[in-house]
Amino acid sequence: MNDRVGLDPAIGARLKRTPDGLVPAVVQQFDTGEVLMLGWMDDEALAHTLTEGKATYWSRSRGEYWVKGETSGHTQWVKEVSLDCDGDTLLVKVDQQGVACHTGERTCFDADRLFAADA
Amino acid sequence: MNDRVGLDPAIGARLKRTPDGLVPAVVQQFDTGEVLMLGWMDDEALAHTLTEGKATYWSRSRGEYWVKGETSGHTQWVKEVSLDCDGDTLLVKVDQQGVACHTGERTCFDADRLFAADA
Repeated sequence: MNDRVGLDPAIGARLKRTPDGLVPAVVQQFDTGEVLMLGWMDDEALAHTLTEGKATYWSRSRGEYWVKGETSGHTQWVKEVSLDCDGDTLLVKVDQQGVACHTGERTCFDADRLFAADA
Repeated sequence: MNDRVGLDPAIGARLKRTPDGLVPAVVQQFDTGEVLMLGWMDDEALAHTLTEGKATYWSRSRGEYWVKGETSGHTQWVKEVSLDCDGDTLLVKVDQQGVACHTGERTCFDADRLFAADA
């Protein structure tokens, strides 16, 4: 991520952030409905996502901005962004290029099923 | 929620919790793929969800357990629960009875669209 773009103050005023200044972003494939991953955005990551059209996160583990796909090529092209009823969660609908998960799985939820109801 | 059921230690060992002991749970309608809401679970809420088959959360605003639908009738019948690749997010697929959002909308993401790409 090169330039800081700044978040629309009208949006910023509606966000409820964690003490670290972050909001969780549920990331969903826009056409199939697959939930791909959960990322975290601060104001700048959200601003970048909204203006550049590529999903951008704050990496809590690396402590830096992370334009998804910048190194892997697995870009998430943004189709729609919504804020939930109490302003503390984002839903980001994307077109996922390649796979979402760093393990090579399509989604981050493919590998560890804790429970499945009987059919 | 009446009785404490306790979480399977094999699952508990894989969870990465916030400093408050919580894990975010993305809640999705199992058949349509709609993302309904984001809730938070501690070990006991997850245990209850897995054993009772009704999605149960820790309400951060009220500071109490919250069996979704217990007062509203809008129960979430659990179909599948998965843990993500780094153990810090749950995906809970449910059959939502009625609406998910306390505002009366079907999902918590219906009312506030921040961005939509041109068709």
